[in-house]
Amino acid sequence: MKPKTEPSLVPRLRVMRGKNIAFGPGKAELLALLAETGSIGKAARRMGMSYMRAWSLIRTMNQSFKEPLVFAAHGGRGGGGGAKLTETGRKVLDLYRQMEQTSLRAITPSWKQLQQLLPD
Amino acid sequence: MKPKTEPSLVPRLRVMRGKNIAFGPGKAELLALLAETGSIGKAARRMGMSYMRAWSLIRTMNQSFKEPLVFAAHGGRGGGGGAKLTETGRKVLDLYRQMEQTSLRAITPSWKQLQQLLPD
Repeated sequence: MKPKTEPSLVPRLRVMRGKNIAFGPGKAELLALLAETGSIGKAARRMGMSYMRAWSLIRTMNQSFKEPLVFAAHGGRGGGGGAKLTETGRKVLDLYRQMEQTSLRAITPSWKQLQQLLPD
Repeated sequence: MKPKTEPSLVPRLRVMRGKNIAFGPGKAELLALLAETGSIGKAARRMGMSYMRAWSLIRTMNQSFKEPLVFAAHGGRGGGGGAKLTETGRKVLDLYRQMEQTSLRAITPSWKQLQQLLPD
């Protein structure tokens, strides 16, 4: 990552259920890392969070949707906990990334106007 | 506010400058309340934050843009601190609200697909 001094616009989409966040930026990143690494331990480390915190986010996601998003198993070789996205997990992650991109594209014209009010 | 059990999608747009949030949902709400009440003390109370916290958010906003967003004065009658949006402040708030609405409209089709994966 190069150092950023340019202003940037970051859309953070939250799927709320009452006061609970069923899905959002952190859970999306976790899903993506689980898909990449296949390991709860590795994904948690990459996000700088504890294994138990990652496990708790997975539990929340799995309970928030009709079908689980992640097949997960505690322990295993190396004790890191294996994990794999379900079909629903992949769909949710794809839709979420699509929404982020769509959102960003749609707001670009207003964002350019707002940037003119920010210093160079 | 009625109790919400239906899932809802909340786009939270953040204008980042490096690691700092130059503008986002909290600052937008504060601007709107300053415009409505004309008082830092009243706006802070409505947001459940301290006067000093509101003052600090105003300072950050004013320093992040080319021109200040808020004319503000400590103290005054009742000690609440008077405040008024500048022309730039009104523009920034309008553009931000516009971006929120544009974002939400643009992602509605994907959001409908995602909703089908959530329980009723």
